[in-house]
Amino acid sequence: MALIVQKYGGTSVGTIDRIRNVAQRVAKFKMLGHQVVVVLSAMSGETNRLIALAKEIQTVPDPREMDVLVSTGEQVTIALLAMALKDLGLKAKSYTGSQVRIVTDDAYTKARILSIDEENLRADLDAGHVVVVAGFQGVDETGNITTLGRGGSDTTGVALAAALKADECQIYTDVDGVYTTDPRIVPEARKLDAITFEEMLELASLGSKVLQIRSVEFAGKYKVKLRVLSSFVDINGSEGEGTLITFEEDSMEQAIISGIAFNRDEAKLTVLGVPDRPGIAAAILGPIADANIDVDMIVQNVGANNTTDFTFTVHRSEMKKALEVLAQVKEEIGAREVTSDDKIAKVSIVGVGMRTHAGIASKMFRSLAGENINIQMISTSEIKISVVVEDKYMELAVRVLHQAFELEKAAA
Amino acid sequence: MALIVQKYGGTSVGTIDRIRNVAQRVAKFKMLGHQVVVVLSAMSGETNRLIALAKEIQTVPDPREMDVLVSTGEQVTIALLAMALKDLGLKAKSYTGSQVRIVTDDAYTKARILSIDEENLRADLDAGHVVVVAGFQGVDETGNITTLGRGGSDTTGVALAAALKADECQIYTDVDGVYTTDPRIVPEARKLDAITFEEMLELASLGSKVLQIRSVEFAGKYKVKLRVLSSFVDINGSEGEGTLITFEEDSMEQAIISGIAFNRDEAKLTVLGVPDRPGIAAAILGPIADANIDVDMIVQNVGANNTTDFTFTVHRSEMKKALEVLAQVKEEIGAREVTSDDKIAKVSIVGVGMRTHAGIASKMFRSLAGENINIQMISTSEIKISVVVEDKYMELAVRVLHQAFELEKAAA
Repeated sequence: MALIVQKYGGTSVGTIDRIRNVAQRVAKFKMLGHQVVVVLSAMSGETNRLIALAKEIQTVPDPREMDVLVSTGEQVTIALLAMALKDLGLKAKSYTGSQVRIVTDDAYTKARILSIDEENLRADLDAGHVVVVAGFQGVDETGNITTLGRGGSDTTGVALAAALKADECQIYTDVDGVYTTDPRIVPEARKLDAITFEEMLELASLGSKVLQIRSVEFAGKYKVKLRVLSSFVDINGSEGEGTLITFEEDSMEQAIISGIAFNRDEAKLTVLGVPDRPGIAAAILGPIADANIDVDMIVQNVGANNTTDFTFTVHRSEMKKALEVLAQVKEEIGAREVTSDDKIAKVSIVGVGMRTHAGIASKMFRSLAGENINIQMISTSEIKISVVVEDKYMELAVRVLHQAFELEKAAA
Repeated sequence: MALIVQKYGGTSVGTIDRIRNVAQRVAKFKMLGHQVVVVLSAMSGETNRLIALAKEIQTVPDPREMDVLVSTGEQVTIALLAMALKDLGLKAKSYTGSQVRIVTDDAYTKARILSIDEENLRADLDAGHVVVVAGFQGVDETGNITTLGRGGSDTTGVALAAALKADECQIYTDVDGVYTTDPRIVPEARKLDAITFEEMLELASLGSKVLQIRSVEFAGKYKVKLRVLSSFVDINGSEGEGTLITFEEDSMEQAIISGIAFNRDEAKLTVLGVPDRPGIAAAILGPIADANIDVDMIVQNVGANNTTDFTFTVHRSEMKKALEVLAQVKEEIGAREVTSDDKIAKVSIVGVGMRTHAGIASKMFRSLAGENINIQMISTSEIKISVVVEDKYMELAVRVLHQAFELEKAAA
């Protein structure tokens, strides 16, 4: 008998029929003798519907009330799934985040989990109940409703698995695992049987949408065995093994490169002709941080005449705000010019094998050059290399790299 | 400075625009220096939408999960109204039933309020907040979400007014007060400035839809000053005085008859040729009660040959079930025949003045006879007289009685 936490996303509970399917899958695991905790998102579209209502009332809705509002989405699905489970003759009980209690800080709309009171859940599990918990939500220490931000249901699942010392946390989604890259761009993309936490973390932060990055961090921190599976396979068939997120030492598969991530969400800002003296990076990025703009890649080049060119990327939606900040900064530091470009894309190769294999970067750059794709920026970490290219070349770059690193073939 | 509890029903918060209107009305009272607690229902239609979802999953939805589900309706409106109030520059804070805490018993879907922790609300009021509370819902002593049943938001409003010792509980609805009868049937129907609790209780239980009966009982028990007002008058105009529900001694208006109630919700069952011996009423109504069928009027007539005819009314939707029970009862007690009739209507005159005025009943019967309306059953209490007539005569009966008792004229 194992204790399994299963998390189902919005599309998996998007209709009454799909909620019934989830109930049947849960029943199958229950019949095998397992204890099951289910964590649910809101029905797909519901959270956006609620946010739209709020925005009709307040351009910038009050964060405390926003959380009261959107947390109703998951409360609806947990009640409906508990009913569907009872309809199958199972014992089941729903819990809101506040009922569990999943205690968070009071950072409304992006709260962090501080602790989980798991005693009631455990008592229900021991009494044979399926426990159905609302994802994405919690309660602060004074009883206010909070939410964890977009994708927070993954984090709820992993946090519950950690608190209950579950044998496995299964994340059910609309794909059947983690792929070497998006199959819509590279049809030969291959599902990975396993991937390390570090690789998953890089892929998640680089724009791969399978898992929410905080849930992966959480799983790594608390050593939760995490598996990504599809909820859309026939209930009478097998879910398959999905993709297991492993700790490096357990990894079965030792490919040099595990996957290719990409996104078009960023914009590039360049400050040209900056006097090359100490403290200049802080002088530029300090005001950007003060304006609450997140910076991703940063590159500094040597320029002519004892000046330097300073380039960084931000989320595309914040480019305008960043430009306003830089207009002021330019005057203060005596830079020559500020330019911006939102027609860029970031493409990254990720793999723990990089650590022990030389020549990966040059192979990447050569492959792109072979297609005449110009590299605008480069940034590296221990297990990933990211490049910025003109956005129209993004798909081509992904395909070229997938082929160059032979990702369609399973590792030996 | 007064402390006012205002309750708004589903149609008053049915759209974003109407929620804005409620916010403006609340702001007006706040500007006058009052402390305001607002109790809200779900947006009109929302509760039915949620119940329909549940019934798609379970023919008889699990009551605990039903309450988890439908309580989301009010949670949405309290968040939206709190946002609208903040948008007007007011301080506001929403509370679910469980956050208040409004403690109830654990009779899911029809729970009763046991106690209210009003300290947090009072602290917020003293700090200048408008407090926005979800109606209709509470929490049992172990933390399960409960609901008070249909119309329960009125009860929440009155219970909060009692707990906070509010100066007045205002029930905003789509009519501007309590009328002598339904103006759609009698155009001359007159709005009452005041009505006693006892009269309101009879009118509510007899099918007048303005206030939920439990809220009236509650207000009577805790001496809460209750006022019915319209939320659909122009915000810049006056709400008027609506109708004040008074204790008899305060009553300004001493009409003999205050109003006429009516409904078509009942059906009549008659057991003919019942042996006239002690215990026969129990032998008939015992099995009816065991089948959970509520009985309203009961009349027993003397029949021929030492037999008696026994007639009672039930809700129209339960007539079939009652007939099945009676088929069995008939054999057991040796009755001759069971008949039923769902083409009936009940018309009632209500007024505390009846206690001190003779001849009210005969005036009622004479008026109906004057229009050739046959009376099938009669039932009386200290302050009301109800008759059952063929349902096609219902409107005519109401008009005739309204005229006979001169209800269009204000009391001297």
